Amino acid sequence: MSPLDLLAEVIGPKNLLRDADDIAPYAMDWRGTWRGQPLAVARPGTTAEVAEVVRRCGAAGLGIVPAGGRTGLCGAAVPAGNGPPSIVLSLERLNRIRQVDARDFSLVAEAGCVVQAVQQAAAEAGRLLPIQWGAQGTAQVGGMLSTNAGGIRTLRWGNARELVLGLEVVLPDGRVLDDLRRVRKDNSGYALRHLFIGAEGTLGVITAAALRLVPPLRRVESAFVAVPGPEAALSLYNRLMESGAELVAFELCARLCLEMAARHGVGLRMPLPLEAPWYVMLEIAAAHPSVPLREMLEEALGAALESGEALDAAIAESEAQRAMIWKIREDYPDCARRDTPAVNTDTAVPVSAVPEFVNTAERALKARWPEGRMAAIGHAGDGNIHLSLHAPEGWPGDRAAWVERAAGMEALVNAIAVSLGGSFSAEHGIGQSKRHAMATHKNPVALELMRGIKGALDPEGRMNPGKVLP
Amino acid sequence: MSPLDLLAEVIGPKNLLRDADDIAPYAMDWRGTWRGQPLAVARPGTTAEVAEVVRRCGAAGLGIVPAGGRTGLCGAAVPAGNGPPSIVLSLERLNRIRQVDARDFSLVAEAGCVVQAVQQAAAEAGRLLPIQWGAQGTAQVGGMLSTNAGGIRTLRWGNARELVLGLEVVLPDGRVLDDLRRVRKDNSGYALRHLFIGAEGTLGVITAAALRLVPPLRRVESAFVAVPGPEAALSLYNRLMESGAELVAFELCARLCLEMAARHGVGLRMPLPLEAPWYVMLEIAAAHPSVPLREMLEEALGAALESGEALDAAIAESEAQRAMIWKIREDYPDCARRDTPAVNTDTAVPVSAVPEFVNTAERALKARWPEGRMAAIGHAGDGNIHLSLHAPEGWPGDRAAWVERAAGMEALVNAIAVSLGGSFSAEHGIGQSKRHAMATHKNPVALELMRGIKGALDPEGRMNPGKVLP
Repeated sequence: MSPLDLLAEVIGPKNLLRDADDIAPYAMDWRGTWRGQPLAVARPGTTAEVAEVVRRCGAAGLGIVPAGGRTGLCGAAVPAGNGPPSIVLSLERLNRIRQVDARDFSLVAEAGCVVQAVQQAAAEAGRLLPIQWGAQGTAQVGGMLSTNAGGIRTLRWGNARELVLGLEVVLPDGRVLDDLRRVRKDNSGYALRHLFIGAEGTLGVITAAALRLVPPLRRVESAFVAVPGPEAALSLYNRLMESGAELVAFELCARLCLEMAARHGVGLRMPLPLEAPWYVMLEIAAAHPSVPLREMLEEALGAALESGEALDAAIAESEAQRAMIWKIREDYPDCARRDTPAVNTDTAVPVSAVPEFVNTAERALKARWPEGRMAAIGHAGDGNIHLSLHAPEGWPGDRAAWVERAAGMEALVNAIAVSLGGSFSAEHGIGQSKRHAMATHKNPVALELMRGIKGALDPEGRMNPGKVLP
Repeated sequence: MSPLDLLAEVIGPKNLLRDADDIAPYAMDWRGTWRGQPLAVARPGTTAEVAEVVRRCGAAGLGIVPAGGRTGLCGAAVPAGNGPPSIVLSLERLNRIRQVDARDFSLVAEAGCVVQAVQQAAAEAGRLLPIQWGAQGTAQVGGMLSTNAGGIRTLRWGNARELVLGLEVVLPDGRVLDDLRRVRKDNSGYALRHLFIGAEGTLGVITAAALRLVPPLRRVESAFVAVPGPEAALSLYNRLMESGAELVAFELCARLCLEMAARHGVGLRMPLPLEAPWYVMLEIAAAHPSVPLREMLEEALGAALESGEALDAAIAESEAQRAMIWKIREDYPDCARRDTPAVNTDTAVPVSAVPEFVNTAERALKARWPEGRMAAIGHAGDGNIHLSLHAPEGWPGDRAAWVERAAGMEALVNAIAVSLGGSFSAEHGIGQSKRHAMATHKNPVALELMRGIKGALDPEGRMNPGKVLP
């Protein structure tokens, strides 16, 4: 039998996509930036099937590209264009929530579960899975963990990594690491789960995870605040943190971003007139209903207005107003895509360095691309600002022309972040798109260690070839 | 020059202890359980010196046993009795706090800083390092991270691992991994820091860490609650968690433990008469002063008393009363040591399995050692209960005789924990004492992976030989 027939034997012919039309969606990322040529798409339905597919691919010398909801931004789930013959291994059929234990504040979900479905299952048990980002309605648990997803609530509950109690992983040779234990403390040797989380499928295939849940938020208060600049926003951030209010989101955005949202968004209403240079969207929350959140927020914002940190502020007066603030934030990336072409970055710096980062980058970008328009938006409470350089309005060329004109923008911004003790890859991952940045900016000792680990776990380089490591 | 002279050349003769009397404290753990024979004790003063010592030890074929405050319970910081010729590498002179950044909620501390000094530095900056355990006045940062220390606040802020933003590590070949960045988000390849945290010095020497701080707690309320049993305690735990109160400690202990504390402790006053079979010590906290903590606690305890989950409850009415509750908890281990000899365990199970774990273990221990007395105390909110089997009162033999009589107790308790999806090593680590448990209970695939990683990072097995891996 051919290698593909051997795979079909494991998972059934209808779960091995071989027709070009069926494969096409898996051969390209959703933005159309990355294209590969998988030989087939395997859709196993159980962990045992994943393991057998991985074993047989190994025997046949095929590379394996794990794929989840394929909402990633770095091309990790698409075979590398010049890579070895590979299949895409889609986890979409491993979509069972195996267990929800409310008393234990945990659940066990398979890799192919859509994140929103897991959030829903937690909510039905009176619990909260505290991670939130735009793609959660499509992204899957395996991708969330393989990319160590961030989002707007990282500030309070950490990245996806911090929500994991245990993992089930199919290793590159087909063995299964069954470590789905739901314990909060386990100091028995090396923390293997942390190797697979964020490894983007290059060390194995996450097939299931035990996730930590928290009590639901019974009170939330959101505000939309006009500020004079990033330094004032940082002061406001510190004021709120020091007050002791539980800040669960603190987003900073330049006016340009909100103008794009206002222009291209559907049904978006700005809570304040767009007259200030910068804005903050923030949320404080409490799990206990008797916490006087509104008073906390009014007191902090009152003092911020008095001190000049804030120019104006709108506290959401209803759930609809609150939802609008976060809809603006979530819809922004799509709105920006409908504007002129842009080159994007995903950096993080220490929170205290955010103002210097933004100001330095703004000066450098203006000097080199005076016609460009810098959009800055991000999770300021994590130091994670996404800077983009948009083509001017009325840009006559296409996207490729702007990307060519702005060549070097990403490297410039990355270098500024790294010089401030930051990272060139905060929450989107490396995939294919940032391998060059890994080569340029990553600590060489760290790179050597990573290569050693990759060699120890996947000596033949079968897992997601051409990704992460330069 | 001899290998030791070569080391003295790097750090200065007075920082290389070679006299038997000087070495003696490093040759034995504080409980006197583990003894080794280091050739010398090296006390480098800088990261560069650590690196050079490690390089020269490698060239001379010497093993390296990193040591911090040496408060560990598993013999990790003492050379293995039958191990290769080794030196102890004490980090005690790397004790500078390199940076405190209040705006960033972070600090950078060297490995030899005493944990309490770091807590103090954070407090002086108006911040909290949220980890707390009995040995914090002696334990050092390097040991805290190398053992991934737990303690009574893990419930809210996680283990030591969760507090780390970046690490500086001297690798087994003397290279330095300089990754002290204070970023909250960094998805650029494998999470190397998590390999070194909890590795007990077998993969490298942690020389400094960037740690995450949090806002200080402005309100705390503690209570001492009599409960009918572990099942009721779990219900009380869930009642508090579901109420949304921020639980920062939830300790469960059997009456026997409190009786030992009352008998052997100095200046301990029990908040309630010791008439119930089990007790809970709990604390809720808030960073914001306007959170009505007292009302939250009274409401929850009132309902617990009404439902029968709680038999009696004493809320601390003053800081002195609060301190007393936690002094009882912290002094307990010493009090227990002054009682009859005991064999101890360090297991964790899913929180919801704590009652079944305790009940099953109690039955099994009673059946096999009817004369033994089971002491149970631990971090029930993490599922981490420390069960000990004490010799009967008036035990005529010595410690060794009881250890011999109770042989198999640890294995029995470990097996029960593992059968409930738990861990045989929750927060103390493996060191020398639990290597046999690693061989018996650890997932064999996990063990093979760990050996592969150890081989990739430390192919000659220089780092802390004879520890962690069986």
